[in-house]
Amino acid sequence: MAPAYWPDAARGLDFRLLAPNSHHELSMEFVGSHILSIDQFARTDIDKIFAVAAKMEPYAQRERATSVLNGAILGNMFFEASTRTRVSFGCAFNLLGGEVRETTGFESSALAKGESLHDTARVLSGYSDVIAMRHPQAGSVSDFASASRVPVVNGGDGVNEHPTQALLDLYTIEKEMRGRKRELDGLRIAMIGDLKFGRTVHSLVKLLCRYRDVELHLISPAALCMPEALVEMARSAGHTVQISENLESSIAHVDIAYSTRIQEERFGSRAEADLYRGKFRLNQSVYTQHCEPNTVIMHPLPRDSRADANELSTDLDGNPNLAIFRQADNGIVIRMALFAMILDVVEQVDKHSHPVRWYTGSRF
Amino acid sequence: MAPAYWPDAARGLDFRLLAPNSHHELSMEFVGSHILSIDQFARTDIDKIFAVAAKMEPYAQRERATSVLNGAILGNMFFEASTRTRVSFGCAFNLLGGEVRETTGFESSALAKGESLHDTARVLSGYSDVIAMRHPQAGSVSDFASASRVPVVNGGDGVNEHPTQALLDLYTIEKEMRGRKRELDGLRIAMIGDLKFGRTVHSLVKLLCRYRDVELHLISPAALCMPEALVEMARSAGHTVQISENLESSIAHVDIAYSTRIQEERFGSRAEADLYRGKFRLNQSVYTQHCEPNTVIMHPLPRDSRADANELSTDLDGNPNLAIFRQADNGIVIRMALFAMILDVVEQVDKHSHPVRWYTGSRF
Amino acid sequence: MAPAYWPDAARGLDFRLLAPNSHHELSMEFVGSHILSIDQFARTDIDKIFAVAAKMEPYAQRERATSVLNGAILGNMFFEASTRTRVSFGCAFNLLGGEVRETTGFESSALAKGESLHDTARVLSGYSDVIAMRHPQAGSVSDFASASRVPVVNGGDGVNEHPTQALLDLYTIEKEMRGRKRELDGLRIAMIGDLKFGRTVHSLVKLLCRYRDVELHLISPAALCMPEALVEMARSAGHTVQISENLESSIAHVDIAYSTRIQEERFGSRAEADLYRGKFRLNQSVYTQHCEPNTVIMHPLPRDSRADANELSTDLDGNPNLAIFRQADNGIVIRMALFAMILDVVEQVDKHSHPVRWYTGSRF
Repeated sequence: MAPAYWPDAARGLDFRLLAPNSHHELSMEFVGSHILSIDQFARTDIDKIFAVAAKMEPYAQRERATSVLNGAILGNMFFEASTRTRVSFGCAFNLLGGEVRETTGFESSALAKGESLHDTARVLSGYSDVIAMRHPQAGSVSDFASASRVPVVNGGDGVNEHPTQALLDLYTIEKEMRGRKRELDGLRIAMIGDLKFGRTVHSLVKLLCRYRDVELHLISPAALCMPEALVEMARSAGHTVQISENLESSIAHVDIAYSTRIQEERFGSRAEADLYRGKFRLNQSVYTQHCEPNTVIMHPLPRDSRADANELSTDLDGNPNLAIFRQADNGIVIRMALFAMILDVVEQVDKHSHPVRWYTGSRF
Repeated sequence: MAPAYWPDAARGLDFRLLAPNSHHELSMEFVGSHILSIDQFARTDIDKIFAVAAKMEPYAQRERATSVLNGAILGNMFFEASTRTRVSFGCAFNLLGGEVRETTGFESSALAKGESLHDTARVLSGYSDVIAMRHPQAGSVSDFASASRVPVVNGGDGVNEHPTQALLDLYTIEKEMRGRKRELDGLRIAMIGDLKFGRTVHSLVKLLCRYRDVELHLISPAALCMPEALVEMARSAGHTVQISENLESSIAHVDIAYSTRIQEERFGSRAEADLYRGKFRLNQSVYTQHCEPNTVIMHPLPRDSRADANELSTDLDGNPNLAIFRQADNGIVIRMALFAMILDVVEQVDKHSHPVRWYTGSRF
Repeated sequence: MAPAYWPDAARGLDFRLLAPNSHHELSMEFVGSHILSIDQFARTDIDKIFAVAAKMEPYAQRERATSVLNGAILGNMFFEASTRTRVSFGCAFNLLGGEVRETTGFESSALAKGESLHDTARVLSGYSDVIAMRHPQAGSVSDFASASRVPVVNGGDGVNEHPTQALLDLYTIEKEMRGRKRELDGLRIAMIGDLKFGRTVHSLVKLLCRYRDVELHLISPAALCMPEALVEMARSAGHTVQISENLESSIAHVDIAYSTRIQEERFGSRAEADLYRGKFRLNQSVYTQHCEPNTVIMHPLPRDSRADANELSTDLDGNPNLAIFRQADNGIVIRMALFAMILDVVEQVDKHSHPVRWYTGSRF
């Protein structure tokens, strides 16, 4: 389509990255920065983001409200539809006291009239204080950011990156593990489903390379296995990687079971899809028989609850270890944290806060 | 389409309801409640809502502004397009000082990818303090609400309910009657047009069953008459019901003439439509010849002003008894009242208010 | 389509106007007024708007924030998609402290169900304090405004008018000239491209008729030349008008080179389009060889950066005289100024202001 916006990394599924274990030296300056890729973050950066996210919890949970960003505007520029990511970014900014102006699709934009992303960026960045952007083309958000006069947060650029999703996944794991007196070092995690095209599991593998002694259990049909480069990256980081087509045996000793959707059209033929259908479905019966008692279940959502998909059964909904909705909730505090850090108001959030005066009793 | 969300009541036009006259015992608790159906409201509940709505008038009329909900977020989730209802909900929340995040259509939502309404509800209700939702399927909003962690207000679920429209209709009647030293008990009302499929007139009949000695004049083509169950309900409530195909004679002695649109495709054939075309049109000449001088004209809007429809002629626009735009205005105070009651800020609205400082001179 | 909304002026490209030089007597009252056409503005009105716009600069540049319109609502009613104009109006209102409720397309509106623009206006104007409206039909915004109970600002009504664009163009010229110790009287301007259908250049010619001794260089294919009525208007105002098909010679002695897009489908045939392709493209090489050193380059945007269009080459992007993004930025202060004047809060903007507390370092 528009190869100009398609960087080499995205074009050939060549997951180049800074050398593992070199991250400690690269700690980024957040104020005024674009957030484009998880490759920007050293382990210490992630620690900082998670510490700020934790400070945001009382606001996300409506114990307090803050007006620190009163008068600021988020340009929520979604050139590809994605209701929940768009609303999550917008709510995060509202919860800091700011306003949101947005667009929700591609067709009507000047891009369709031949305007370059550079021009669009120059114009739109004159209106707001920070931009969250989603666009179907890999690399497009970086390209846009290079011409923007305000910080840009990548809300997903096609097959390339969705860094706030990656961060909220890792934040969820860290929080769930903390409740179990465990931490990210030494984590045992199973990733289940489409590991070839799943953007979220790719990002998660990369992020986990910042930590030590992780056990990765990669469970997928052979045709949809994790790219070799990522497996190598994990091994180079000193992690154990086990690859399997068998769900039951591979989820027996993990802290996290991270399930993803398998789209049937990813298979070469209907016959091949038939071969695998149902083999990677997690439900309460499988969980009870095969998992350790406190195994946390995650999923990037939406999960497909139609009978022929159903990768994560609704019969797990009463299971307290099902963390999928806490995971979605965590998107709010992660996005609040990034906005607060980029706009340099972390220390002012509490100062401009007040107790919430309306009913919040049914929230949790 | 998706029968799972289609409750029995909606499926077969079976208008079951609590026994008439039993409502006084059922008075609801508003704080933290969903608003899904008019069946929730006893007469005393309606009195409360109308009293709070009256308190909201100075805000709707821009005499004062309040910041009581500063920091709160309405999730304005319109999975079916409806510009004015969506904007009315949003403005009502803004007028209480809150922020609005919204979606305006179905296509882009995760529902289209097989996500259940339960999952959507669990996720979206983690973002906002209250949700207003519209969806094309009857029963869908209740289904959504059952999984939501915050209160949900039904903004219309297909053929089923649109409770804020029903309340604003009744509020309009009560207000117009009060100006004439009359009240809802003893009301004489004509309902004109498509009484079979018209959701608003069905709701209005139900609500009027909370009151005493109402005269109902039901004027429609035979093929589009009011469902028998609703006629029975009105009679059981002690009301007089007159059914007619003749507009002129039936609007002679009423306080309210409530007109609705007849969509031609509702008839079995073009020939049948031709038979009725124009017979249920109200215009100034009909009004002058047949109505009492102060008869109030209402319509749920939009009225179809094209020549072949024109159920309510624009030649009535100068008639001070045409209440259709006051009726639309009343949607704001009704929605403000419900939000304030659900979120338990009724007593704080005035405390956090200040005079409006901008020009409002051309409003009325 | 709907000729009812198509005023004579728009129908026949009959650019009737108040007699030139008579504007000084017509100074308008802004408070509570609709802004529908540049024909409303005398030179003294334009001076006032520009003075208020200059007062808005510190807010647009995030030096200060104001809460003057806290509690007010803009109805941003875009019945035709236009991302940047819609977002610009919305941001301008947010920057004054107000809230924005909006719609972004035509299909879902009641207009599609046969509702008249009058009814739509009556209803929507009950919700907000001021309305910005865009609609594809010429005259539609005036028609809407005639029934609105709050002031309406025309955000573009088809081939007819887009007055805020015209004002931001003139404001840009004035500001750029001021930096060069020049003013609007005595301006030398080239207009390049499609001068027949280009709404922005038509409006600019009209506005320039309020000033003295302007030199107009009109450069276009013969088939796309400026309408004779506008040329006559300029000459009647005492201006010099030079008409040309040659770009290079005509941009040699101008202060402003205002480029516009030529849509190929405007030509009668592909052969005719081929004849002209590329002849009206401005790039750095043409600029260096033919323009005076400080000639300001303008364009209404979006510019078409595809190879076969490219009316304003991206190789000009490093040229400090390229004012196209400053021009877009100026839309914010012009729209802020109009809102502040209409709503009568000009004198209160500073009083309700405070310094911005977040990072703004990367803005310019």
